[in-house]
Amino acid sequence: MENVLEAELTLSSSSLERGLLEPLVDRVASEALQRSLGARGTGSLSSWAVNGDRITLTLESEGGRPHQALLAMVRRLSEELGRSQKIGVRAVRALRYRVRFAAGGAPQKPISLPLPHTLAFEGETATLEFTDLPEEALRDNWVDRAVQLVVEKVKRQGYAGKEQYWSLLHPASRKEHVGTHDPTEEMLKRSWVRNGPTKGKWFLGPTAAHLFRTMERIARREVLEPLGFWEVVQPHLDSFEILQKTGHLEGLPGEFYYAAEPTTRDPAQWETFTDLVKITHRVPMEELKRLVGPPSSVLCYAQCPTIYWWLSGRTLSADSLPLKIYDRTAVSNRYESGGRHGLERVDEFHRLEPVYLGTPEQLLALREALLKRYAHVFDTVLDLEWRTAWVTPFYLQQSGGVGVEDVKERVKGTIDYEAYLPYRGDREHSEWLEFQNLSIVGDKYTKAFTIRAQKGELWSGCSGIGLERWLTTFLAQKGFNPADWPSKFREYCGELPTDVEFL
Amino acid sequence: MENVLEAELTLSSSSLERGLLEPLVDRVASEALQRSLGARGTGSLSSWAVNGDRITLTLESEGGRPHQALLAMVRRLSEELGRSQKIGVRAVRALRYRVRFAAGGAPQKPISLPLPHTLAFEGETATLEFTDLPEEALRDNWVDRAVQLVVEKVKRQGYAGKEQYWSLLHPASRKEHVGTHDPTEEMLKRSWVRNGPTKGKWFLGPTAAHLFRTMERIARREVLEPLGFWEVVQPHLDSFEILQKTGHLEGLPGEFYYAAEPTTRDPAQWETFTDLVKITHRVPMEELKRLVGPPSSVLCYAQCPTIYWWLSGRTLSADSLPLKIYDRTAVSNRYESGGRHGLERVDEFHRLEPVYLGTPEQLLALREALLKRYAHVFDTVLDLEWRTAWVTPFYLQQSGGVGVEDVKERVKGTIDYEAYLPYRGDREHSEWLEFQNLSIVGDKYTKAFTIRAQKGELWSGCSGIGLERWLTTFLAQKGFNPADWPSKFREYCGELPTDVEFL
Repeated sequence: MENVLEAELTLSSSSLERGLLEPLVDRVASEALQRSLGARGTGSLSSWAVNGDRITLTLESEGGRPHQALLAMVRRLSEELGRSQKIGVRAVRALRYRVRFAAGGAPQKPISLPLPHTLAFEGETATLEFTDLPEEALRDNWVDRAVQLVVEKVKRQGYAGKEQYWSLLHPASRKEHVGTHDPTEEMLKRSWVRNGPTKGKWFLGPTAAHLFRTMERIARREVLEPLGFWEVVQPHLDSFEILQKTGHLEGLPGEFYYAAEPTTRDPAQWETFTDLVKITHRVPMEELKRLVGPPSSVLCYAQCPTIYWWLSGRTLSADSLPLKIYDRTAVSNRYESGGRHGLERVDEFHRLEPVYLGTPEQLLALREALLKRYAHVFDTVLDLEWRTAWVTPFYLQQSGGVGVEDVKERVKGTIDYEAYLPYRGDREHSEWLEFQNLSIVGDKYTKAFTIRAQKGELWSGCSGIGLERWLTTFLAQKGFNPADWPSKFREYCGELPTDVEFL
Repeated sequence: MENVLEAELTLSSSSLERGLLEPLVDRVASEALQRSLGARGTGSLSSWAVNGDRITLTLESEGGRPHQALLAMVRRLSEELGRSQKIGVRAVRALRYRVRFAAGGAPQKPISLPLPHTLAFEGETATLEFTDLPEEALRDNWVDRAVQLVVEKVKRQGYAGKEQYWSLLHPASRKEHVGTHDPTEEMLKRSWVRNGPTKGKWFLGPTAAHLFRTMERIARREVLEPLGFWEVVQPHLDSFEILQKTGHLEGLPGEFYYAAEPTTRDPAQWETFTDLVKITHRVPMEELKRLVGPPSSVLCYAQCPTIYWWLSGRTLSADSLPLKIYDRTAVSNRYESGGRHGLERVDEFHRLEPVYLGTPEQLLALREALLKRYAHVFDTVLDLEWRTAWVTPFYLQQSGGVGVEDVKERVKGTIDYEAYLPYRGDREHSEWLEFQNLSIVGDKYTKAFTIRAQKGELWSGCSGIGLERWLTTFLAQKGFNPADWPSKFREYCGELPTDVEFL
């Protein structure tokens, strides 16, 4: 790495002269460079000048982080000038900051970055130069993260368009199905469901709601309760802070529904809005935009982030482990631009999300137990044609959270459950529905939320039980005649409500 | 009412001369005035002129709606000019529109209205003059609604600051309570709950969640199931259109949480946002505001509006009535600026909302049955000190949806359930908690959503079962020692989970 950092310091006085500063600046720079770069590099103060209340200086280094040397210098200068001259350093910023680094590959197309910068490549070596970075950028290591981001973007370009890694685990047992009806179409015909008042959401009338709650009861009684999972009730809105810690905010911002709060609750402030609604019977959008603040939180996307937040900063007793909890209260929301279909691909859906924390051994044992219970439900209670697969996003295979060894050893990672939907075509060519999953994520989230075990390593994982997907899979394979349904399911279901009769 | 409407018509051609128009305009105006004003008033065309492609004209009337006469004139002119000259009327707008009307009282302070206007009073007579109203204002009767709004504002001024009408129905039976602890403080001490990641929301750990679900089970098994209520599952987001029909949008816009959607799901469009999150570890608000649209729906405030929407446009068979349904899936959200306290006054809470539709007789009988079941729960299962009251917002007593006779006869209206909270002070001086309510609203919502019965009048009503309020009331009166809890509740509760042990 070859780094050049040109910085400007603003002093609290313009009375200092170069002669007075000369011995101080050189000494402080050399000490700071040695201490900050340490064994990781060598560096020097290549030039400096003072003009009124400003000092400009240039640090160069091979390896290491010159901005840390700069900040150490500023600290020391402030101390020494404060003591001898009653002068402090008021501000510091980078006029230019250039870093050279190995990018792990050559880019196949231009790479964009925010903030004023230039980025050039010679083969696999990148030269990134920022201009005019504020003090917080230096204190908060923005440049280090920008370097990582360039490396990540080069790597992603290499995998663009490639599928995720998919490997069959448990093959499907072939079953007979009652037909090739689309279950949502059939439910619409029967007035069991109505396409919601906003897009990608559904209203379930009494019969559909009864089947939906039957699925929930099966999941709780056959999987969660026998394995000792406890229910929690979590808020429906996730904070940005939580989603930054899990990585969702940087990963999926275009898939969230956002929540925004009124800037005031005072009816007098809302009077023009309410008057216009009363007079025009329309929503006065300009008034609304004036009175509602910017997005301030996110409608639940998945439940696990807020469960981790609940445990953040805690140390869990050995007796509490493995900790097994689940939420079924927060409703999941995902903004789907295209590809909505029936109740199986929607913007709003309802999941039970079991989350588990424990030692790696505890979690591997729990995964086996969960796999067994799920197999029992899908084979015996629901009698479905289903399979499982080990899946990993392709670009993650050789880096990041999941390493090559995970793919090989199948310790950390995700198992998808897929079901055959006869209405989509034949088994071999149609897309099966991912109706369930199960993951172990290692210490990614326990670290991010500073959750500790009384002793030893603390891992976590989660599983998503999507009630709409269980329901549509079941109806797609088993149909609408209760006489065709497996007896164990009929026991859980009991009598269907006589639905509302519309004329 | 004395009305003056000065309007401008834009023709599709400027070739018409006054001589040609003269007989036509006078005749059409006189016919339109007669037909539109009918028995409600008399009117005349007091002047008109043509200049290029514009006709300006002034209609005056005593009583009636001159804008309807104007629109009838425009229709007729278009027909006749179209036939004879191939010329049409392209646009119409009001340059000035003045109405005089009895306001039902003299205002005590200035009354504001949106849209360019002047408003003056002589005693109880108001003169309202709008300038420059668009065509849709005329077609959509904005001025009529503005007149109603002025009348309403004058009346509200008369009741400003007055309490709602409150009249005791069922007095409380005095009970002994175990202490004066604040239940939320105690739950916090025990780590049963955590104050949520965004304001006014709570995370319930296993024990609190267990008690919360126990309350839900009691409400379902002791009230809803015995009375034959069916569950439905409704979307969590309400459309503006629904809330306009119920009147919530004009009544409570400052109390909603709003939802907003991304303007795009394309990761390339979000790249600057995600890059900035990665580099700065902050939320780049300007990018977020650019990429998220304006508020497009509202987080559930109460469940009944969307239940009415589900039934909108339907005719219910006689056999379906009384229709008894409830939702427990949508989470209620209310923006509370001040006055949040513990779990009993929050921004997010969980309600079972039973909704019922039927003939007035059916609903009155159902209300009696509900009152009985609730009394059983609060007396026998939970053993609470509670009372009921008949409540009506004061300004509604002599107008609008609820008339004097309703307050007297207690047919349409709301019953509040209030509980004594020992931690707030003595019975006589402290504020009791409204922990439950029950309403019959007549045909207000069935009309608004065009829901009909196979025969006869269709009324509706609803009741709100707030689980957080049941829970805090119970814990405030009965305390935290299961030995002090009533036996029937203990049966429902079963064994408490051993909560997570934090070190």
